[in-house]
Amino acid sequence: MNDLGTSMHSLCAELFPICRSITGSGVRKTLSIIKGHLPNLTLHEVPSGTRCFDWVVPREWNIHDAAIIDQDGKRIVDFKESNLHIVGYSIPVNKTLPLEELDQHLHSLPDQPQAIPYVTSYYHERWGFCLRHDQRMRLKPGNYKVHIDSELSDGFLTYAELLLPGASAKEVFISSYICHPSMANNELSGPVVTTFLARWLAALPARRYTYRIVLIPETIGSIVYLSRHHAAMRENIVAGFNVTCIGDDRAYSYLPSRHGATLADQAALHTLQHLHPEFKRYSFLDRGSDERQYCSPGIDLPVCSVMRTKYGQYPEYHTSLDNLDLVTPTGLFGGYDVLQKTIECIERNETLRTTVLCEPQMGRRGLYPTLSQKGSGSQARHTMNFLAYADGKRTALEIADIINVPLWELINTIERLKEEGILEVVA
Amino acid sequence: MNDLGTSMHSLCAELFPICRSITGSGVRKTLSIIKGHLPNLTLHEVPSGTRCFDWVVPREWNIHDAAIIDQDGKRIVDFKESNLHIVGYSIPVNKTLPLEELDQHLHSLPDQPQAIPYVTSYYHERWGFCLRHDQRMRLKPGNYKVHIDSELSDGFLTYAELLLPGASAKEVFISSYICHPSMANNELSGPVVTTFLARWLAALPARRYTYRIVLIPETIGSIVYLSRHHAAMRENIVAGFNVTCIGDDRAYSYLPSRHGATLADQAALHTLQHLHPEFKRYSFLDRGSDERQYCSPGIDLPVCSVMRTKYGQYPEYHTSLDNLDLVTPTGLFGGYDVLQKTIECIERNETLRTTVLCEPQMGRRGLYPTLSQKGSGSQARHTMNFLAYADGKRTALEIADIINVPLWELINTIERLKEEGILEVVA
Amino acid sequence: MNDLGTSMHSLCAELFPICRSITGSGVRKTLSIIKGHLPNLTLHEVPSGTRCFDWVVPREWNIHDAAIIDQDGKRIVDFKESNLHIVGYSIPVNKTLPLEELDQHLHSLPDQPQAIPYVTSYYHERWGFCLRHDQRMRLKPGNYKVHIDSELSDGFLTYAELLLPGASAKEVFISSYICHPSMANNELSGPVVTTFLARWLAALPARRYTYRIVLIPETIGSIVYLSRHHAAMRENIVAGFNVTCIGDDRAYSYLPSRHGATLADQAALHTLQHLHPEFKRYSFLDRGSDERQYCSPGIDLPVCSVMRTKYGQYPEYHTSLDNLDLVTPTGLFGGYDVLQKTIECIERNETLRTTVLCEPQMGRRGLYPTLSQKGSGSQARHTMNFLAYADGKRTALEIADIINVPLWELINTIERLKEEGILEVVA
Repeated sequence: MNDLGTSMHSLCAELFPICRSITGSGVRKTLSIIKGHLPNLTLHEVPSGTRCFDWVVPREWNIHDAAIIDQDGKRIVDFKESNLHIVGYSIPVNKTLPLEELDQHLHSLPDQPQAIPYVTSYYHERWGFCLRHDQRMRLKPGNYKVHIDSELSDGFLTYAELLLPGASAKEVFISSYICHPSMANNELSGPVVTTFLARWLAALPARRYTYRIVLIPETIGSIVYLSRHHAAMRENIVAGFNVTCIGDDRAYSYLPSRHGATLADQAALHTLQHLHPEFKRYSFLDRGSDERQYCSPGIDLPVCSVMRTKYGQYPEYHTSLDNLDLVTPTGLFGGYDVLQKTIECIERNETLRTTVLCEPQMGRRGLYPTLSQKGSGSQARHTMNFLAYADGKRTALEIADIINVPLWELINTIERLKEEGILEVVA
Repeated sequence: MNDLGTSMHSLCAELFPICRSITGSGVRKTLSIIKGHLPNLTLHEVPSGTRCFDWVVPREWNIHDAAIIDQDGKRIVDFKESNLHIVGYSIPVNKTLPLEELDQHLHSLPDQPQAIPYVTSYYHERWGFCLRHDQRMRLKPGNYKVHIDSELSDGFLTYAELLLPGASAKEVFISSYICHPSMANNELSGPVVTTFLARWLAALPARRYTYRIVLIPETIGSIVYLSRHHAAMRENIVAGFNVTCIGDDRAYSYLPSRHGATLADQAALHTLQHLHPEFKRYSFLDRGSDERQYCSPGIDLPVCSVMRTKYGQYPEYHTSLDNLDLVTPTGLFGGYDVLQKTIECIERNETLRTTVLCEPQMGRRGLYPTLSQKGSGSQARHTMNFLAYADGKRTALEIADIINVPLWELINTIERLKEEGILEVVA
Repeated sequence: MNDLGTSMHSLCAELFPICRSITGSGVRKTLSIIKGHLPNLTLHEVPSGTRCFDWVVPREWNIHDAAIIDQDGKRIVDFKESNLHIVGYSIPVNKTLPLEELDQHLHSLPDQPQAIPYVTSYYHERWGFCLRHDQRMRLKPGNYKVHIDSELSDGFLTYAELLLPGASAKEVFISSYICHPSMANNELSGPVVTTFLARWLAALPARRYTYRIVLIPETIGSIVYLSRHHAAMRENIVAGFNVTCIGDDRAYSYLPSRHGATLADQAALHTLQHLHPEFKRYSFLDRGSDERQYCSPGIDLPVCSVMRTKYGQYPEYHTSLDNLDLVTPTGLFGGYDVLQKTIECIERNETLRTTVLCEPQMGRRGLYPTLSQKGSGSQARHTMNFLAYADGKRTALEIADIINVPLWELINTIERLKEEGILEVVA
């Protein structure tokens, strides 16, 4: 399956150079490339100034060029080299100013002198440049020319949505974001893994649930989307996942929904506990992405996060060091695999009931050894344990948790018991 | 009280040589000896072919003789020496065959070369012999005569039942099984301890609960019995115990009911925690006896198991080494004692209420020291603690658990408080 | 704030010499001094012989003098030196008797030979003297004159009550006791800290709750008080505290209410966990003061205890060593501080709800940095966490527990959010 990992990494590489922000052409270009993988993806444009709960959609920001030019006319800090060099949403500037004044518009990380930091200012007009601290320390006194060719004007916020109908109108929700410039774990791994999950879901012969998949700018995008759909979402969504920071090769991480024991949490924990029992468990207090909106009071969606190394927990976070070396094919595949199995658990999470009183006679069905001897029957143990708890009150996932077997390893058994007529689904 | 242990061990010894199976004359002979101790025990015969839920009562099996005879005419494996030598439910055979062919019908334990294993094949026609692995390894090539004088024919499944009426129609249920040939812990300890518990219960001047006590063949017997009585049992039984492996001198063990917090579990845990706090606690996933049926979905009886060393957890299990040396008078008495105290806890488990507001004045009733000095009053502590929780909502067992005193040590206190009129039973 | 500690210690010193018991002039004198600090304190007199639940108010006891006088006419044990020398409620005696006979009326502590023990006999007529074990061992054979000038006669039991009205008729209850002779931690620290808490409460510009504060003799006093007020108390009291042993400088201790999760417990635990996380947690089974009555079945008040070193847990307990050195200004202030913050938590424990869906836009309100960069926003974290849980179902205290911040540190934030209109109180 490393093919899948490699394909995902290639898509990351294709999207990496684009300068994204919460609005603008970078978002549109990113989504149009993803639409190449998901033809049914729909793009939506929301006008600047639209009110969404306590927020207003900001002006659209586009940037063509930016540089700090020294007295020799050299572009010493150049947007064309890294789009992290410009503070997101910087206003246009074109002037010459002394170092002391310029310095108030510079951002760098003394503790990570080789890293360009990622800085934005969406809701307050300013301009600024980000650069390596090493370079900043070497700047000589004197005048510098500052050139920012950006536009801030009424336009649109762009997001994408994919609805995959299932047998039930009840929905599973998957959300990721496309507002970060050139960084790989946070945040190309999110939309890329989401794209490949969506491809897998779209290709399934049958889906029990309807899938609602969105690619949005973080915070303002989820608020915009919720302001349009929250009533239907609260009505229909049974489980949701915020997909972020899912491409490096270090930890597995879980951040619960606010309520903490939803179907999404239950399935994610079941999967992580079996596949990666060493996973790191965070608190909802450690949140920092769109679950802040999805789980907010009155919205209350059952949304949790499954991650590789969580945002804020790795040194490269929000710097130019979060690059295509940090995110790997195996890292991406590991994250994809956990989410895919988590979704399989949700699809398979029926409430089940045995059709006979007492244990069924399994021997005559070839499901239990006919010779009873010391130590025999261990291979039939999971089957008998599953039946013992299939009381019409528990779901398959709850039973799998009790008997401590991954649900995906029980699927054949469940199908066989249904065929034998000794197990049935409770409506 | 070692008299009781000795008496139980003697009954084990009397029953030991009988060849029992799930049907046949060995069961009848065993039950008729037990009826000598329990005159009101009723024997029931259920015809072969009777349908019981998903099962059918098998043909009755009786065996008169069986042997493997070598070329010198010597009975080298002889049923008369140990009834474990024959695979339970072996069909009749009378033929001569070479070692290679015979070997496919032999069962031994490479890891326990001195032990004859216990093997059965109730629901699939076959024949076989069990022998020490040492002996099997020494068998010389050549022809052997095989002789099995058994009968498999329509007959009956036999079980016994004892009903001891109490003040209430609500029942305590005790079940043990009588289908194992010559083995002592699993399983003569079970029916023998059950017999002596029944004698004690029958002799009580008054019983709060009705007692339903059954001695049945394992699995098919409990299924047969449930198919006849499950509705009334579900209606009436407040607590039940599957009595098995209760005669050796090593561990104490507890296996919960499926629901896990029934009155039976509560009383058994209370008793074990006070008498043998080192007891081993199993999961319902470790089950292997008739609780599989009693606790199955839709049957849902509150049945747990209190054992000495659990089936499957000691090396002699299901072999000829599970003999009358393994089971001891103190071992049997220890198991009896726990079950007796557990039942006493259930009988005494009334819901109680103080009749006065605030603490009663205990000094004038002689229940508290009249001189108050540093360190005084400790002997009255349990009494005051019991009263503090006797709020008409908690049962005596719940209060005993909270104040961490064995209920049997509180009985005199409770009676005295009732006499003083400061404690009353809530209906 | 050590001024407050010093003032409290001075009041302890003023009250220390008075000979208190469960009735008598010592109680009246103590309460009249306290009334000097709390002008609205009301004294109540309950006649001897009054029935209160299972109890009867005893005769009033007053003592003027007591001594053991040796053959040389020397007062070798003298009530005037320490009022602990006399067994509380000793009947009048005036006779000469030999040492063997006298010895049956003597109390001392072999393990604490330098300590005079504290002994009482309220409900059984006797007389006795308490003395240092050292001294007792040195008594020479011969005759001794015994003189006890006490009175036991129909009179009154005296207690004091202060009601401070609040916006709500719902009450917070504070109880302490005034029946111990010259001992400092148990028990002058209790009424003295209660007095200063009452002064603080009386001076507050506004109170959410009504405060019911009582100073009573232990046991019989709380029973008397409950017999008069229990219905209204059960109706109105939302939280209560038994204030005792709150003046030494060693541990902090918590003893839960019988139900164990009341508002009183919740607030006390919240405060102790933040201020003194090393505090010692007792069980209700360790109780020994008026919570025995307040939490008794049918009374069921939400009353817990916050203490410094708990009664019975320090060597000086109930002896002459429990003196004004053991209780210190910092010890008293530490106990006062915990109770004051606990009460503040209760006053502030509103149920709160955000008024907008999704997170509010905090940046434009100056409550969140407008520049987003690595590591920013930590100071706004508590605010966002508080809002995330303000769902109209949780109280401020529950949210403070979830987000692990002392409620008193959130008060300014809560007020600001209310002013901004993004947080409201649920009725």
